[in-house]
Amino acid sequence: MLEGLRIVEMSSFVAAPLGGMTLAQLGADVVRIDPLGGAADTARWPLAPSGTSLLWTGMNKGKRSVTVDPRSAEGREVVARLAAEAGIVLTNAVGGWPSYEELREARPDLILLQVEGKPGGAPAVDYTVNAEIGFPLVTGPVDHAAPVAHVLPAWDVACGLYAAVGLLAAERRRSRTGEGAHLRLPLYDVALATAGNLGLLAEAQLGVERERVGNHLYGGFGRDFALGDGDRVMVVALTRRHFNDLCEATGMAGTVTELARLLHADFSVDGDRYRHREALAALLAPWFAARTLAEVGRALEGRSVLWAPYRRFTDLDLAASALMDEIDQPGVGRIRAPASPLDTGAERRAVPAPRLGEHTDEIVSGLGLDPADLRAKGVVA
Amino acid sequence: MLEGLRIVEMSSFVAAPLGGMTLAQLGADVVRIDPLGGAADTARWPLAPSGTSLLWTGMNKGKRSVTVDPRSAEGREVVARLAAEAGIVLTNAVGGWPSYEELREARPDLILLQVEGKPGGAPAVDYTVNAEIGFPLVTGPVDHAAPVAHVLPAWDVACGLYAAVGLLAAERRRSRTGEGAHLRLPLYDVALATAGNLGLLAEAQLGVERERVGNHLYGGFGRDFALGDGDRVMVVALTRRHFNDLCEATGMAGTVTELARLLHADFSVDGDRYRHREALAALLAPWFAARTLAEVGRALEGRSVLWAPYRRFTDLDLAASALMDEIDQPGVGRIRAPASPLDTGAERRAVPAPRLGEHTDEIVSGLGLDPADLRAKGVVA
Repeated sequence: MLEGLRIVEMSSFVAAPLGGMTLAQLGADVVRIDPLGGAADTARWPLAPSGTSLLWTGMNKGKRSVTVDPRSAEGREVVARLAAEAGIVLTNAVGGWPSYEELREARPDLILLQVEGKPGGAPAVDYTVNAEIGFPLVTGPVDHAAPVAHVLPAWDVACGLYAAVGLLAAERRRSRTGEGAHLRLPLYDVALATAGNLGLLAEAQLGVERERVGNHLYGGFGRDFALGDGDRVMVVALTRRHFNDLCEATGMAGTVTELARLLHADFSVDGDRYRHREALAALLAPWFAARTLAEVGRALEGRSVLWAPYRRFTDLDLAASALMDEIDQPGVGRIRAPASPLDTGAERRAVPAPRLGEHTDEIVSGLGLDPADLRAKGVVA
Repeated sequence: MLEGLRIVEMSSFVAAPLGGMTLAQLGADVVRIDPLGGAADTARWPLAPSGTSLLWTGMNKGKRSVTVDPRSAEGREVVARLAAEAGIVLTNAVGGWPSYEELREARPDLILLQVEGKPGGAPAVDYTVNAEIGFPLVTGPVDHAAPVAHVLPAWDVACGLYAAVGLLAAERRRSRTGEGAHLRLPLYDVALATAGNLGLLAEAQLGVERERVGNHLYGGFGRDFALGDGDRVMVVALTRRHFNDLCEATGMAGTVTELARLLHADFSVDGDRYRHREALAALLAPWFAARTLAEVGRALEGRSVLWAPYRRFTDLDLAASALMDEIDQPGVGRIRAPASPLDTGAERRAVPAPRLGEHTDEIVSGLGLDPADLRAKGVVA
């Protein structure tokens, strides 16, 4: 969908690279510019046996790669010309590369989006932002006192997607008004905004301290249950219909009605299902514990109850997913890699990440410069 | 930035509402259409003392709200005309509302984005998707056997942002080619794509089972440390420079060099810092345990080490954040609420969420219809 959109990226790790890749997977031409030898994320774990970073290759699928020495005058000129031609720059670099003001000289309507740590530019990463916003102290087992870090760098992911939104919004405005943009996107603000959007900060301002509720769904009925065969399922009843269906499927409808009477509770209301979650879960747990995954599946089939078994990454049937396309990734080999989760109805193809500097010659030549000459001078590689 | 963009939303809970709100906060006119009395998320927790949903008001800031009976022919006509006028529809509803095919009749170049659970439309929610992708079994304390749910509905958040990207991308194409779009965005695919983009699925395909590492940063050195004053900090050394700075600030440089010699390790490399994380953390822990937060702050000031104290939602200084604007939210009162984390340089304002049906009259009148007549017939409210 984004054919004709061109973006230059000076990026590393997750947020900024994901922003560019999200647009590349929708058809944009995204050029990642790295310093000679690569940026700080070149060898970020996980690694393939060859030492190739699975994070780097995962975050840069479908981009072109050029490596330039940003300390040399000629290298900075290459960057400035690429930025001027593309008209859009996405970066999380702090220093080292030409600034917005410098890049704008050759392209007055430049759009540049700077991913930052804190507002104002102080450094911060997903793991530190997560700690200081508040999630780790309400995550994890109820009887666990210490914070629990997330494994998914959720703020980086959200930040990368906000960056993609910001670039498209700015480009839409430019196409109508001719106006460029210098956007800033602090990772900290992404996390703070999200905590606010979800109502957590409003709750805090109203004086409510969010409690740690383990794997229970907050404000409704949902929890994990152990099965008889060693498997485990997550079960969620978001609505009254889901909850009634769960009670009926498990043969608990009568018992739950009786419990409601005893407790003076109204289980048609979210809050009462939540307040009495432990009692309800205790009633349901034996039903799950007496069944295999297949039996649970049969009993819940055709019901509105939301549920899923817990799985490991190694359990997933990637061949069954239309999202996961087989690619030949340099440094990794033949693997299944995701296309965009946005399904346009067209065939979904994943494109491998480049090798670092794979497109240096093609890109430098495209500027009318001699790549052999620049390489000999150590300006590109 | 998105002045002139119009979107109609039939949405509930998090992903689809967040997608629309993300665009509303950048200037789009977003109309949320609900059934009479509201959708299933009207009373979703957390709640204000008045019973107003802090989740609903958090997810619908800056939108307009109209309530329509989608079962009546006249109600469906209202929806179809609003969709035709806006030209863009965002929904996670399954049935009940006019379909893409019906809506397209009055607007052949309609863009409709359908947020789904599973590809193909089977229901799934954040909590079930998270279970079946694999994160809960690698999250949480190392000695904890059960899965650990995330508190942040990260997949919903990512899905909502992908939806915003998808709508902007489709609208960009339409403005150039006249082509409409019927996009599908399964929550499951958002999670699967993200696990793939981060390298977790490539790692799994290479036969590596991701281990549970508690609060350690995977593939580098980072962990939480308890302080002497009861506080706790998250500390991250993503690069060699960060790590050297950490060792110097804590007076451990000599000891760590000696440890490297003893272990035949090279702590300038991510992998060795990760493999020996427990030994390194054990060396550093007493330094942190002997200091207050203020002392740690002074020792790390001016160093590249990334770190932050753990905080509760109730600890955050919202008044200090330019992102958090004070609003008067109907049903809640005066609170600070986030604007867009995308900082365009303009003043950042948050706009309250509407009351359910607040704009019914204005919107219905805008179609040339008589709201009093439709209200009397029970078509709108």
